[in-house]
Amino acid sequence: MITLAALQMKSESGDVAANLARIEQAAKEAAGKGASLLITPELGLTGYGAGDIIRDLAEPADGPLVRRLQAISAETGVAIIAGFAEKAGADTFNSAVYVDGTAEPVVYRKSHLYGDYERALFTTAEPSTMLFTHRGVKCGMLICYDVEFPENVRRLALADVDAVLVPTALPAGYSGTFIADHMIQTRAFENQVFVAYINHCGADERFTFAGSSRIAAPDGSLLASAPSHGETLMVVPLNPADFQVSKSENTYLTDLTHRA
Amino acid sequence: MITLAALQMKSESGDVAANLARIEQAAKEAAGKGASLLITPELGLTGYGAGDIIRDLAEPADGPLVRRLQAISAETGVAIIAGFAEKAGADTFNSAVYVDGTAEPVVYRKSHLYGDYERALFTTAEPSTMLFTHRGVKCGMLICYDVEFPENVRRLALADVDAVLVPTALPAGYSGTFIADHMIQTRAFENQVFVAYINHCGADERFTFAGSSRIAAPDGSLLASAPSHGETLMVVPLNPADFQVSKSENTYLTDLTHRA
Repeated sequence: MITLAALQMKSESGDVAANLARIEQAAKEAAGKGASLLITPELGLTGYGAGDIIRDLAEPADGPLVRRLQAISAETGVAIIAGFAEKAGADTFNSAVYVDGTAEPVVYRKSHLYGDYERALFTTAEPSTMLFTHRGVKCGMLICYDVEFPENVRRLALADVDAVLVPTALPAGYSGTFIADHMIQTRAFENQVFVAYINHCGADERFTFAGSSRIAAPDGSLLASAPSHGETLMVVPLNPADFQVSKSENTYLTDLTHRA
Repeated sequence: MITLAALQMKSESGDVAANLARIEQAAKEAAGKGASLLITPELGLTGYGAGDIIRDLAEPADGPLVRRLQAISAETGVAIIAGFAEKAGADTFNSAVYVDGTAEPVVYRKSHLYGDYERALFTTAEPSTMLFTHRGVKCGMLICYDVEFPENVRRLALADVDAVLVPTALPAGYSGTFIADHMIQTRAFENQVFVAYINHCGADERFTFAGSSRIAAPDGSLLASAPSHGETLMVVPLNPADFQVSKSENTYLTDLTHRA
């Protein structure tokens, strides 16, 4: 059992120092509430809608930004998942990093970029299965649009994760409401895994965000649900053992004898 | 554009003649309401919970039962999808047949059997893509548990269907409510296809059914929704052209560049 914290956040567009400070503040608050892991939104460190400047703010995974996150994690005792622009040679990836103190960071690169805006900024990564175990809970990461493809969540579930952790930047509107109200819970239920889907709120110069962050349990129920507006730090216990009955009744992974 | 009818039905357990008469009556009513296609539940002709007798009632796809359905279709001018136990050599499949007058019937065999009850009665079929075009609308079939696997709906969507038609026998309870309230709409939205999910109501000697049949549009909205109790004939227009904007904004099928 772990206690999970998730920050529905209003990033400052293009201001990495301000966003890092906001994440540090949330990590301290999460620590005070007994959480050991904090999730924050997609590109939360640069702002999602900052445009071309995001490429200028890109850093390698072993650069000073990730080292600073590691230091915050070490100081607070809270592991952190944060979205950043990752420089790798000539490529810039839309990435999320898991840091847990001074341990080796785990970096996941978004495989399904959405729309012309993202495709102009980022290189598409191959789908990947980047796993880590946090205090006994086996976790995988996806970013935003990735989770809308059932194939990506299934890949992680078949790798036996307990939880799929998803920084996102979901715009407000009909599709955003649908995804928050139906799809995230379905991804959890059809794989019998936790899904934490953590969004921005408010607006930047390009996008208005849906808020409505969700933490769904393996039985599809909601453990936490953020409002459509406003920053929120959600803190919930997350215990895979609580859902053994649901897993024994909803045997999707063992009944998936044929793959399409 | 077609007009689709769907009968949420209380089958008489083991009484094929009574169930055939019920379907004939619904086909006449559907015709009177301008529908050209009627969908009925999984194993609606035998009853879902009739047990071992279902194997005794099994018929080949070219047997008298399917010929009788063809005759009803020819008389009423309404194509019919009906669930029956299909005898094929030593095997019995949990099947659904599409009949449209005297045209060659299309038979789909369930590939994902649920639980010990079904596995004791039926042979598991390989996943298959049985397509037909009804008045210009390209359709595929699944049966009940099949649709809970995103892989099966994706396979049909990648075969370019407009609509996935799903006779089901969903029991009442927490999972049934979840599937009716979240999963069916998600299957529609994530593939941008219509999903018609047509259930039994009431109870037989083994099961109490959830009712709650659903017809979802490609944008995930509900075109029709049956109550949890009682027989209902739903009649709705189904027009793929109405959802071109949704398809152009939710480009899952074209963005699925990588398959997990």
